[in-house]
Amino acid sequence: MPEQITLYGHGYSPYCISAYIAFDEAGVDYTHHVIDVTNKPAWFIESVNPVGKIPAITYGGPSVPPDQPSPESRKISESRVIADFVADLNPAAHLVPADLLARVDMRLAILDWVHHGLGVWSGVFSGPRPTEDLFVWLEDLQRRLPPTGFVAGTFSLADIVMVPFLKLPVWFWENGLAKGDGKKYLEMLQEPKFARLRKYLEDLDARPSVQRSWDVEALLERWPDILKGN
Amino acid sequence: MPEQITLYGHGYSPYCISAYIAFDEAGVDYTHHVIDVTNKPAWFIESVNPVGKIPAITYGGPSVPPDQPSPESRKISESRVIADFVADLNPAAHLVPADLLARVDMRLAILDWVHHGLGVWSGVFSGPRPTEDLFVWLEDLQRRLPPTGFVAGTFSLADIVMVPFLKLPVWFWENGLAKGDGKKYLEMLQEPKFARLRKYLEDLDARPSVQRSWDVEALLERWPDILKGN
Repeated sequence: MPEQITLYGHGYSPYCISAYIAFDEAGVDYTHHVIDVTNKPAWFIESVNPVGKIPAITYGGPSVPPDQPSPESRKISESRVIADFVADLNPAAHLVPADLLARVDMRLAILDWVHHGLGVWSGVFSGPRPTEDLFVWLEDLQRRLPPTGFVAGTFSLADIVMVPFLKLPVWFWENGLAKGDGKKYLEMLQEPKFARLRKYLEDLDARPSVQRSWDVEALLERWPDILKGN
Repeated sequence: MPEQITLYGHGYSPYCISAYIAFDEAGVDYTHHVIDVTNKPAWFIESVNPVGKIPAITYGGPSVPPDQPSPESRKISESRVIADFVADLNPAAHLVPADLLARVDMRLAILDWVHHGLGVWSGVFSGPRPTEDLFVWLEDLQRRLPPTGFVAGTFSLADIVMVPFLKLPVWFWENGLAKGDGKKYLEMLQEPKFARLRKYLEDLDARPSVQRSWDVEALLERWPDILKGN
């Protein structure tokens, strides 16, 4: 019998959405426990993740109620480490591509996202950066894409790490949540020069795991507040 | 026959030293070509790495002189991506541990190094941070170590990524190259509280691949200049 896995998260969080998609794609079962991020329970900080961040998982140990984590389970935090771990739990799902050079493409894309894209994204939606900066990064991302398919050809951890951050802006703009003229940004995305990027976004949206990860109720619970006043 | 691999680097660079160790541990052959980092050849920027950084490798394609790279080879830069690639070239070397939770340990250590340790290191040796900050991070690293062995138990990419940055300060202090009183810092390392860290550093130093990666002539070519005036 596989080890128990409990995933602590919240459907508004792009890092948690990545984790949901990874587990779904790998076909690995887990118990989900929602963490109220505006009022984190003391037991979560004490017994699961001292840093308090989600997602976090417990792996192994006895079967216990999620709000009474066992000292015997391994606690794993950091969304990218969780994603790698899930990929390792079921190598046959090939969230890390079989081809070694496709793996290089995957890792370079993740590196660029972590050291470049994420800073732009946060600067736009939680800081003073103009939304146009995001489009400059989207052009970089588009240049990285192969003629068809996903970042590394087949669907991989690179797509899993980025997809929530690619879907959120569109959702913000469609719902008038982010600063600036959402309609204008949606039109910019429709420009001919973004044809390849649009196809990529469509391919991501068509993925059942991505559809299942998208919880509008959870998104509405936090994002209007986060984006307000920015 | 395996694909040709050419590694462009210089023995002073901690990122290149990591690459040398990775190839050595994996038992993967390559052609080494020294890049003069103070005067990078135009062909390197044009045909290998437009960003100009080392290490960079070419993989596959025809056999060509290193200074005439073929357009048919794959060019790979970013030291961590190269390290992962080398680990993939020979999985039997287990630079990524077989045990899934040991892999988690490895990845968490690399994440902490990239997002925390490296900033402290650079702040101390290329910036205004006091050397004492490095010792605070070394205490963090020591807490991460298992009772015996390496970061993830067996020798792994986590050790490979960090070892040059762990050996360099000791070498700086022994040779009076870094700011401050090197003798004092060497004595701090000898304090009883660092017993576990010292054993780890000894285990790293005992590794033949680490010994072979350490090119004093190359180190002396660049570091006195880099550290001067800081």
